Amino acid sequence: MVLDKGLGLETAESLMNISGDYVDYLKFGWGTSIVHEQDIIKDKVAMYKSHNITPYTGGTLFELAYMNDKLEEFFQEAHDLGFEAIEVSDGSTTISHDKKLECIESAKKDGFEVLSEVGKKDPGLDKELSLDERIEYMQNELEAGSSLIIVEAREGGKNIGIYDKAGNAKEDEIDYILDNFDGNKILWEAPNKDQQVFFILKLGNDVNLGNVSTDDITSLETLRRGLRGDTVGKI
Amino acid sequence: MVLDKGLGLETAESLMNISGDYVDYLKFGWGTSIVHEQDIIKDKVAMYKSHNITPYTGGTLFELAYMNDKLEEFFQEAHDLGFEAIEVSDGSTTISHDKKLECIESAKKDGFEVLSEVGKKDPGLDKELSLDERIEYMQNELEAGSSLIIVEAREGGKNIGIYDKAGNAKEDEIDYILDNFDGNKILWEAPNKDQQVFFILKLGNDVNLGNVSTDDITSLETLRRGLRGDTVGKI
Amino acid sequence: MVLDKGLGLETAESLMNISGDYVDYLKFGWGTSIVHEQDIIKDKVAMYKSHNITPYTGGTLFELAYMNDKLEEFFQEAHDLGFEAIEVSDGSTTISHDKKLECIESAKKDGFEVLSEVGKKDPGLDKELSLDERIEYMQNELEAGSSLIIVEAREGGKNIGIYDKAGNAKEDEIDYILDNFDGNKILWEAPNKDQQVFFILKLGNDVNLGNVSTDDITSLETLRRGLRGDTVGKI
Repeated sequence: MVLDKGLGLETAESLMNISGDYVDYLKFGWGTSIVHEQDIIKDKVAMYKSHNITPYTGGTLFELAYMNDKLEEFFQEAHDLGFEAIEVSDGSTTISHDKKLECIESAKKDGFEVLSEVGKKDPGLDKELSLDERIEYMQNELEAGSSLIIVEAREGGKNIGIYDKAGNAKEDEIDYILDNFDGNKILWEAPNKDQQVFFILKLGNDVNLGNVSTDDITSLETLRRGLRGDTVGKI
Repeated sequence: MVLDKGLGLETAESLMNISGDYVDYLKFGWGTSIVHEQDIIKDKVAMYKSHNITPYTGGTLFELAYMNDKLEEFFQEAHDLGFEAIEVSDGSTTISHDKKLECIESAKKDGFEVLSEVGKKDPGLDKELSLDERIEYMQNELEAGSSLIIVEAREGGKNIGIYDKAGNAKEDEIDYILDNFDGNKILWEAPNKDQQVFFILKLGNDVNLGNVSTDDITSLETLRRGLRGDTVGKI
Repeated sequence: MVLDKGLGLETAESLMNISGDYVDYLKFGWGTSIVHEQDIIKDKVAMYKSHNITPYTGGTLFELAYMNDKLEEFFQEAHDLGFEAIEVSDGSTTISHDKKLECIESAKKDGFEVLSEVGKKDPGLDKELSLDERIEYMQNELEAGSSLIIVEAREGGKNIGIYDKAGNAKEDEIDYILDNFDGNKILWEAPNKDQQVFFILKLGNDVNLGNVSTDDITSLETLRRGLRGDTVGKI
């Protein structure tokens, strides 16, 4: 899963022509898809889909729609723009867990694939969530219809969720999650190279990784194939 | 204000097509506008202007022209390239304050909009400038004709001017400046996201921010509108 | 020497149109040139060559071919793609020094320009290499036919070879190398701006620098010409 921070259409297309094969999901970060002109967004969505990529709207957009009681309008607009998937999260707002599950179900019923994210963007709030709660929520969201559960790391990947202040993965927490939840249903946000290397060496070269920078699509593919120093001879 | 470090013409155009609405000023960083071929610079300047953006030459170019006693030639060349604004600074060279004011006046008389910058690029020299001096200089430069006063932070935004070694804003210094100078006339260089969030939350979402990376134009606009986690519900 | 991490063809072309004059060598990083479709790689190679740039394959690709006993196939494929230069390294694998020299000779005989790299990508292993050994290897590789010897710093430029953990250059080691080896035959990997400034001020503005980011081509040229704050008045 790659994070599009607002690439121009032609630049994004040039990038997909060379490396689109290595992208499954493409997130229009945060509220970017309502900042730009709708025609360009439509063209970008169609272009990504033509490369067999599933573009989806960032979770913050869902949260704002929910907060403003405009979920229906949001679903309609996402359909109009061509999105077939959305992210449901509660990283920046307070949504009760039951309400979040309802939203996942509504989005599914409305025809969307749903990726849902567990975790808070504020490190202080994020730490209040115990590992067992986290796993319980993940399980419930999967049952409510999410196709993948995203483990939050933001664009920076430091001092948040499974990463410490230096951006190192907390292996014991990850092991605990994997002991209690199906790893194939997790999309690990791993914006930095060392995090990507960690997960590839730990969980195999087809591990689901997200918030990959548009600059790093090819680098990550070489890591997965053992074609970059960090993973040569280890795959 | 966005910093162009040397984007290709087509790439810059693709970016402006999607996010040019959120850019007011575009700085051709340092001496880039004399490194590249004049035809490409002309085309880039015209392209930015067609998006209602004011492109301008980086301050270092002015300083070099001044040092080499070639201000007139510099003004002529800037006109020829299509620039309608220039930056006047003394970050890398020694120019007496009176001379700097004269230069601002000359550039104005020559038809340019002038943005002037207060601060030294060398952190040691920069610290020699007291806050009161800084404010006095800013006031004088405004009266000499500058439309905006830029507070220096370089591309990195650390250990310089209003930022400490970790890149955190020194709020007491900023408050002192704002108590003594019209904040609407300041363009705060804020290359890093946390700095942008700081100023938006402190001074409102239409605060003037500069040295924004071409990668971050859309991110900053989402921050301003409360569409990214850091500012959701706070605007 | 610039590191291409996988730019789209059109984006790379747009960049070379504006700044290709300042690039001599262009490295297709790691194994990128076998990850992408051969037609796009051919087009990129031809495009770079049309700008009088020598594109070459990253050392990791050579190492993998060597490890898998497929040097001949690798040479053939590099020829087919249009490469006229390759990098020979042993940063990620164990190749005896004699074997490495033989490979350099084979590649030369096969018609390639060879750039060879001395140093290990693993900081622990890299430290096992004494300075005198390093210099002896450099000398032998030059005699075997390498046109330039690359001093390893990876993409990050920290805690590796001539750089300490903060990325600062170890000046005493560099002096020792220069006392014992022809500096004109060295290509210093210097991915960070401070490293580039260090070498320009120490060794002159035509020093060979490598692993330059595609984002920094123009910035580096302004540094070389004294057109950016760090080097103004010092060239």
